[in-house]
Amino acid sequence: MLGRLNHVAIAVPDLAAASAVYRDTLGATLTEPQALPEHGVTVVFINTGNTKIELLEPLGQGSPIAAFLEKNPSGGMHHICYEVDDILAARDRLKAAGARVLGDGNPKIGAHGKPVLFLHPKDFLGTLVELEQV
Amino acid sequence: MLGRLNHVAIAVPDLAAASAVYRDTLGATLTEPQALPEHGVTVVFINTGNTKIELLEPLGQGSPIAAFLEKNPSGGMHHICYEVDDILAARDRLKAAGARVLGDGNPKIGAHGKPVLFLHPKDFLGTLVELEQV
Repeated sequence: MLGRLNHVAIAVPDLAAASAVYRDTLGATLTEPQALPEHGVTVVFINTGNTKIELLEPLGQGSPIAAFLEKNPSGGMHHICYEVDDILAARDRLKAAGARVLGDGNPKIGAHGKPVLFLHPKDFLGTLVELEQV
Repeated sequence: MLGRLNHVAIAVPDLAAASAVYRDTLGATLTEPQALPEHGVTVVFINTGNTKIELLEPLGQGSPIAAFLEKNPSGGMHHICYEVDDILAARDRLKAAGARVLGDGNPKIGAHGKPVLFLHPKDFLGTLVELEQV
């Protein structure tokens, strides 16, 4: 079931400063910041050739990464996203195994325009896991 | 400078239980556990096709992941590893940019038998970054 690692998301308090770290210090190539108000984040992508890093800054009220940044004010790895072929089949398999799917259990359209689900970190080694159908 | 994402390491308190989550719940294919006493960890690799997940369990006294697991008893994402072509050139560039290299600043031989360095999380968005020369 588990496919490719689609991205690792790093939540940051200041996207411009974070972009400078990856661009100037680490020598990475970044996309322009993209505001995603429906997801409560502004995002910059770093293509590492084989996968992506997403830098996420909170946008607006009630951002889904606000609580994480309160606990981790310098930022940190927020979630990891794996690709699956069939997100409904994956969800049903996970639920049958006793894993908790966040929200109402129905896929939403994620930051890449594809169906996504998030899984409870307590069921996955303390790691927030996103599944994306590709 | 920044190359491919070599792996994401997830520290776990119980490698057998963590392996079961990835194998049975997520349907991943795992390697057999490998004890690396010189690194203070036992490791299982998950190949996602484009990169790897490393599950790390403490081994012996003074494991480098022991403090992390005290703070995160269920486990969590511990570090991210990027590939570089020339680790000494990378180190010198990073130090010139003001970033802190952990330890004595000299590469050590990592879990994959290649030279590695770790960078201070406070200089990299709250994320422990490993560089591996490939």
